[in-house]
Amino acid sequence: MTDALVDVLARRINHEKGDAGVVVVTSRRVARIYGRGFLDPLCRAIGAGKPLALPDGEDRKTWDSATRIFDKLLANRIDRRGWIVAVGGGVVTDMAGFAASVFKRGLQWAAVPTTLTGQVDAALGGKTAVDFGKGKNMVGTFWQPAFVCLAPAFLATLPDRELRCGLSEVVKTGVALSPRLLKRLEDCGEDILAKDHEKLCRIVAECAKLKLVIVAADPLDRGVRAVLNLGHTAGHAIEAAGGFQKWNHGEAVAMGLLVIASLAVECGKMKPEEKRRVYEIVERLGLAPRIRPGPEDAAPFLHLDKKSIGRRIQVIVPGPLGRTTVKTIEPGELLKEQYWSWS
Amino acid sequence: MTDALVDVLARRINHEKGDAGVVVVTSRRVARIYGRGFLDPLCRAIGAGKPLALPDGEDRKTWDSATRIFDKLLANRIDRRGWIVAVGGGVVTDMAGFAASVFKRGLQWAAVPTTLTGQVDAALGGKTAVDFGKGKNMVGTFWQPAFVCLAPAFLATLPDRELRCGLSEVVKTGVALSPRLLKRLEDCGEDILAKDHEKLCRIVAECAKLKLVIVAADPLDRGVRAVLNLGHTAGHAIEAAGGFQKWNHGEAVAMGLLVIASLAVECGKMKPEEKRRVYEIVERLGLAPRIRPGPEDAAPFLHLDKKSIGRRIQVIVPGPLGRTTVKTIEPGELLKEQYWSWS
Repeated sequence: MTDALVDVLARRINHEKGDAGVVVVTSRRVARIYGRGFLDPLCRAIGAGKPLALPDGEDRKTWDSATRIFDKLLANRIDRRGWIVAVGGGVVTDMAGFAASVFKRGLQWAAVPTTLTGQVDAALGGKTAVDFGKGKNMVGTFWQPAFVCLAPAFLATLPDRELRCGLSEVVKTGVALSPRLLKRLEDCGEDILAKDHEKLCRIVAECAKLKLVIVAADPLDRGVRAVLNLGHTAGHAIEAAGGFQKWNHGEAVAMGLLVIASLAVECGKMKPEEKRRVYEIVERLGLAPRIRPGPEDAAPFLHLDKKSIGRRIQVIVPGPLGRTTVKTIEPGELLKEQYWSWS
Repeated sequence: MTDALVDVLARRINHEKGDAGVVVVTSRRVARIYGRGFLDPLCRAIGAGKPLALPDGEDRKTWDSATRIFDKLLANRIDRRGWIVAVGGGVVTDMAGFAASVFKRGLQWAAVPTTLTGQVDAALGGKTAVDFGKGKNMVGTFWQPAFVCLAPAFLATLPDRELRCGLSEVVKTGVALSPRLLKRLEDCGEDILAKDHEKLCRIVAECAKLKLVIVAADPLDRGVRAVLNLGHTAGHAIEAAGGFQKWNHGEAVAMGLLVIASLAVECGKMKPEEKRRVYEIVERLGLAPRIRPGPEDAAPFLHLDKKSIGRRIQVIVPGPLGRTTVKTIEPGELLKEQYWSWS
């Protein structure tokens, strides 16, 4: 990391928070890699103590982890004007944002996403959450960060599987909103997998902008923002079916995209060749692993979806590319065997 | 309870929620007393299942209790359009409101406070919370109920100690905002302790209105709403010093009012005869118990106050009656021995 990033970020934080207290929340992985080069100088520059490094892993996005943030805030005597700066992946930004939204009924916070998923999706838009019971993100708030710092330089150390996880959200955004973004991915997907910095910057900027336009139009997710859930209905069910371990969020979303693209062709929204493009980019970039679930695996988890309306579920049906339709369906309609044959 | 109340309430809930799901949250005490006469017919009329009866007690206002509400919401497959109706004291409305604010990132809710504290203070204004660590209401949100149903008929069965608890908030509101309210209490305090229905209705309506004017002007508690914290800085510390058991919230607030009235005289904001009126009404109505803490008991808990600014604390200083000033002080200024001599 360059010192320039620390400087820019510290200046912005100090300008916004004034003399209020601040706590930096991160993950163990990020602390290990970016402790000396980034977190330590940042903390010094903004007057924060040692960062709180939470254990890694999607399964740690629990209330118990959130209480570790509360303990840290209490130990540092953070008052209501205080700040949290979250540096990490979606688990860190979701939990830190949630903690910020409820501690003393609301602190300010800023997000510095260090994963591609975070930079193009998770850290943008103010959705915060912890998991509860079998339901992902079952408990949370809408609590916008004061700002989000997008620094693709962090992606240089991101494991390939995590990079692919983020690319699933880029494919989703392209299919839902922007044929141009999808085309860009088709053109330079391999460069991005090879972590070409220029091309990463470009795709992050473009994808983040698309998401933020939607969020600004519907911050509380009561209308158009639903398009961003494309692929997530089946995706969440798949993720849950794998115990949040077998498939990560991006892999589940990639498979969810394939399922819903098949449904979209079936109901005449998408042309078969459009569906083929979606399948091709997912397979070419290796976004969905070889071992995939069947509809019977996902079925028990479909009703847990937050977007469910009574016993029916609301899905975003893509097609033509760059456009979507909202549809309320019986869970069974999403579970037809042929949509889960992955071809 | 009259059937009329069930009718009015059910009609309002059904009108607002449409065909969305609803869960009724209450306390064991309320369920015992008002199960057959009120909760059962209400649940039938709004299509809710059996109410969830939470254990009583201020010390049960924890995340663990909130999870029981989440479990109930999940079991009843409540979707994002769903509702919670909270019927009970401040513990129930605080927790149910908190659960409503974070479950699936926000349900609608309505409050039916059954205690005087709830009707004149706790259930009004959208502050929701659970306790965390040693700090009261340390975790919470601002989440306004769709409506609050004020039915003083519930107060007929309220234990005297609980009634007094609510009267402390009435005294606070009078001292902070309305000499007329204070006068009313001086004129008919004994009738109210004897649960004269007419007079209870009057005082509830007057006090609730005063609070709601302030809340409407400053829903997020960033300005004028601070006046409602009169007596609460020392009050919260006293409550914590007693382990949230020795003194209930109202008793702690009553003592907090005495402490701050003494400070107000010391710094020239209140006339000695005004302070005497505050002491007299608190003693006459028996709002503060005989056994009271010293400043050394409260000291360790003062910095936990949510209104603290760094190491200094913000207090509301009353005087003249009906007016207040915000002051930022060292905790030591509130801990002077003479303010805690209770005379």
